Amino acid sequence: MTISMSSASLPVFKAMLGNLSHILDKGQAHAEAKKFDPVVLLQYRLAPDMLPFTRQILIACDGPKNGMARISGVEAPKFDDTEATIPELKARIQKTLDYLDSLPADKVDGTEDKEITFPVGRDKTRTMKAEAYLKHWVLPNFYFHITTAYAILRHNGVELGKADYLAGARASA
Amino acid sequence: MTISMSSASLPVFKAMLGNLSHILDKGQAHAEAKKFDPVVLLQYRLAPDMLPFTRQILIACDGPKNGMARISGVEAPKFDDTEATIPELKARIQKTLDYLDSLPADKVDGTEDKEITFPVGRDKTRTMKAEAYLKHWVLPNFYFHITTAYAILRHNGVELGKADYLAGARASA
Repeated sequence: MTISMSSASLPVFKAMLGNLSHILDKGQAHAEAKKFDPVVLLQYRLAPDMLPFTRQILIACDGPKNGMARISGVEAPKFDDTEATIPELKARIQKTLDYLDSLPADKVDGTEDKEITFPVGRDKTRTMKAEAYLKHWVLPNFYFHITTAYAILRHNGVELGKADYLAGARASA
Repeated sequence: MTISMSSASLPVFKAMLGNLSHILDKGQAHAEAKKFDPVVLLQYRLAPDMLPFTRQILIACDGPKNGMARISGVEAPKFDDTEATIPELKARIQKTLDYLDSLPADKVDGTEDKEITFPVGRDKTRTMKAEAYLKHWVLPNFYFHITTAYAILRHNGVELGKADYLAGARASA
């Protein structure tokens, strides 16, 4: 098989969102074992002016959802950002996966040179071709927020290893 | 243009390694401004059993270097892992960029189904096809170590933003 816009995007987002859901399970289990409220983890930040854990998860979901909607032209659902527990964050990940699963590869393939205009910050936009947008915007942002979520849990004592990040539940299967 | 194994890998590694070098400059400048030894940052870990900053940088370099060597079949230089200062880490990044710059795209293109066997942990190997190896192993590991390095600096008060991570020195150019 030849690499394509769909093969370079959809399986990556799906695998890593599955791993993120597994990492959330480990955070929940850690909080229960240590008898503290998991919401403490959700509000944790690595620096006072970094986003808290919950926002890392929401952005890790919205990045591929909105990015693939722009690339494919298939409208994505909008969510209310009301998640306040780990099970609710896992449901958000699942809804994101449901959208990605609904995308036909042929809506994504061949889009390399499609001009994508997307919001940057509060009141600016930027335009990139879809291949560059995927490689230099959506994917690096996606990995940034997943790794930051991992780092927050790791910094708080949750027993996670690279295998959880790379393979999630499949690592121990 | 159609996405290819070379276009999905080389420009991504080069852009992000450039951004990483820029992030290191900001760490160095922060230490100098605050009058502490930058080596403190190099030894910092987000958790006692996570790797320190220096190792995050070395792995962020070796991942694409060794990964692309396996994919392309073009032998990569070996380095001694003796870096002990930020300028030395920046030189390591530059040597990695020099190797990546030396790779002809046609050694990378068309390798999607090539079987790649690579070391996992101390005494195991794993085999994946090159496209899967790039997407599900080399790239997620690469982003993991760059983001963790960013998080270590951010946690230690270095003034970094997403623009530094996504665009490096180009963000302020």
